[in-house]
Amino acid sequence: MDQNNLRVNGKRLQSTLEEMAKIGATPGGGVQRLTLTDEDKQARDLFVKWLKEIDLEVTIDEMGNIFGRRTGRNNDLEPVMSGSHVDSQPKGGRFDGILGVMAPLEVLRTLHENNIETERPLVIVDWTNEEGSRFSPAMVASGVWAGALERDWAYSRTDIQGKKFVDELERIGYRGKLAAKKWPMHAYYEYHIEQGPILEHEGKVIGAPKGIVCLHWYDIYLEGTANQVGPTPMEGRNDALCAAAEMILKVNYLPGEMGGNTVATVGEIQNYPNSRNIIPDKVHFTVDIRSWDDDLAFRSWESLSKDFKAIAQARGCPIRIEETWRVEHAPFNGKLVQRVLDVADMLGYSKLHMVSGAGHDASYMNQIAPTAMIFVPSIGGRSHVEIENTTWEHCEAGTNVLLHSMLQSANEKSF
Amino acid sequence: MDQNNLRVNGKRLQSTLEEMAKIGATPGGGVQRLTLTDEDKQARDLFVKWLKEIDLEVTIDEMGNIFGRRTGRNNDLEPVMSGSHVDSQPKGGRFDGILGVMAPLEVLRTLHENNIETERPLVIVDWTNEEGSRFSPAMVASGVWAGALERDWAYSRTDIQGKKFVDELERIGYRGKLAAKKWPMHAYYEYHIEQGPILEHEGKVIGAPKGIVCLHWYDIYLEGTANQVGPTPMEGRNDALCAAAEMILKVNYLPGEMGGNTVATVGEIQNYPNSRNIIPDKVHFTVDIRSWDDDLAFRSWESLSKDFKAIAQARGCPIRIEETWRVEHAPFNGKLVQRVLDVADMLGYSKLHMVSGAGHDASYMNQIAPTAMIFVPSIGGRSHVEIENTTWEHCEAGTNVLLHSMLQSANEKSF
Repeated sequence: MDQNNLRVNGKRLQSTLEEMAKIGATPGGGVQRLTLTDEDKQARDLFVKWLKEIDLEVTIDEMGNIFGRRTGRNNDLEPVMSGSHVDSQPKGGRFDGILGVMAPLEVLRTLHENNIETERPLVIVDWTNEEGSRFSPAMVASGVWAGALERDWAYSRTDIQGKKFVDELERIGYRGKLAAKKWPMHAYYEYHIEQGPILEHEGKVIGAPKGIVCLHWYDIYLEGTANQVGPTPMEGRNDALCAAAEMILKVNYLPGEMGGNTVATVGEIQNYPNSRNIIPDKVHFTVDIRSWDDDLAFRSWESLSKDFKAIAQARGCPIRIEETWRVEHAPFNGKLVQRVLDVADMLGYSKLHMVSGAGHDASYMNQIAPTAMIFVPSIGGRSHVEIENTTWEHCEAGTNVLLHSMLQSANEKSF
Repeated sequence: MDQNNLRVNGKRLQSTLEEMAKIGATPGGGVQRLTLTDEDKQARDLFVKWLKEIDLEVTIDEMGNIFGRRTGRNNDLEPVMSGSHVDSQPKGGRFDGILGVMAPLEVLRTLHENNIETERPLVIVDWTNEEGSRFSPAMVASGVWAGALERDWAYSRTDIQGKKFVDELERIGYRGKLAAKKWPMHAYYEYHIEQGPILEHEGKVIGAPKGIVCLHWYDIYLEGTANQVGPTPMEGRNDALCAAAEMILKVNYLPGEMGGNTVATVGEIQNYPNSRNIIPDKVHFTVDIRSWDDDLAFRSWESLSKDFKAIAQARGCPIRIEETWRVEHAPFNGKLVQRVLDVADMLGYSKLHMVSGAGHDASYMNQIAPTAMIFVPSIGGRSHVEIENTTWEHCEAGTNVLLHSMLQSANEKSF
């Protein structure tokens, strides 16, 4: 047969995803499969079983990353890899992460049953703790593997109960012997739901992000003067929550004022003493700024921090600003991105050249090898919630794009 | 001697307050003497010991209220009462409440050592759980005593550890046999620090509040749409925290816009899921509105709730409003308030006719007997904090005003 006519089995992919969705299923229709919990272990065990069924060579490294390797005709050539994560957010959805692991499994099942060989070896990977919601930060195990983070630092991370990453990894039996250390790679593809509304809004099936936006995280601490609310006149108050409210609105209006394609969000706030009849004297809140344009993000923050200081001054609320984290925008490999777009064309799917607003394990892979991602639409743009959803047709379409992108990369001699 | 020349012993009052401040003393210079804890018991034991030292008849009722009674020449006449509370806020100050219990003790010590008799009996009282910070609501035991609240409901209140009010009352040995039931009273005086900056700002020593402002409590619940912040464009977001921020500022500007003497505060906020990279989809916050003018408070709320609904509509964040609690403004007895002002004049203290912005046990007494309060300045207007402070001179001045106000009430045949 002409390999271009090869398609994955959409029904099998669906039942595979449905089987996985039982592990950590929530009453609200989502999953809760926090990293290194019993549910994570169950999902890993099932994944490993499925890898072995199609004769893949399974290895587990010291970060718990699981690799399933299919030999090529020439095993001296650098392999083509694809993967994502089986862990989930608390009360997360049934597609985030797991689609990007089950889809390459479906790709390899399809090759397996059709006895199709490739020049290069193919590798599926499940990266440990992508979400970072139990052990901060996110994407820690792909970060260690890529050499961007220290293993022992990752091992020492604790959850809110004080349990250590390394102890929990040991406990579920997934602390492997193999060093978590990058190997030469010909190409890395990560397939993921979009987690935003753009594809749906534009009516497109396949998204090929040109890269990941830059990310700035800031932590703001305000001080006010606590007092009984009744006897304290409005004049002369130093109300830290009112200062925060002004700042939150500044963040919200920032992208509109600066122009360009930036998003800015306050997601988290703590207020003290948080009593209905005491004027707040301590507030902490976070700021998240993302843009494809690093310079615009910097200018936005500059303008914002000037506004913050003026508000703090006017309200008599001393401010402390922590610049917590900054990552520059990361363009994916142009040739691989174009391949995804071309494959979508070849298969007759509508496509969109876009950006990724979220970080993925692909961010770290992108630092060490040619990398691209494949997106499919999130219904209503919803993600990190139980009602997160993507149609089975779209799941299948993205997997076909993954199949042919991987095939093309795996059969080329050089990049 | 001319009784008008009688003065309390300021040094003794100071050392009594300093002795009390050791019980539950905090490193920050305040006290933590939560109701029905071991510290509360210690303070009660010391108070009872002091009552007995000057031959007062001590009774304890079923709510743990402690009464110390001094007989008059005519014990058929209704007594004159004064008191407040020995319990404190968590990390509270050394004057809130306890000054209003130790000052009438000093008054009765002064009468005792000068062998001064009064026509009517005099009664000191310590009301259980004025603060309400361990067992909600505040002023619960004076409320039961005045017939405004049910004893069994008060008994069933629980702290955050699930401990019951009645069990803790029993545990510290202050569940008396006597019914907590009002008796006829000729006059009730409550002496308290102002807990606001007005007296200090006006440079006055004695405040005589004409009553307690009205109090409105509202609870606001907002819904938004949770989403990953990165891939979700600003346009079309339903950010519940941004809606709340707009509302918090509306509350803050409300008194200025409505004119008159109102205060309006948001003291408490909860944000969900409260994660730095997820758009908030649930916010709860409180609104506290106080004014001497009930009608103004109502009009303020009407205007505010209209604004809230418009903001909720514009942000696409459904709003639910709970009207949690409303108390009308409560004027004290005009004749008693005038007596406090006249006594301040007679003693040569500057004075201010003002309002009380905070509730006190006097609120409940005011429902059943002629009632007035005496305020002295709070340094910097600070209260419910460890650095709460009032000069010893002012403590003494207020106690002298209490002495002569009580004497005048106790020696009049009829009101």
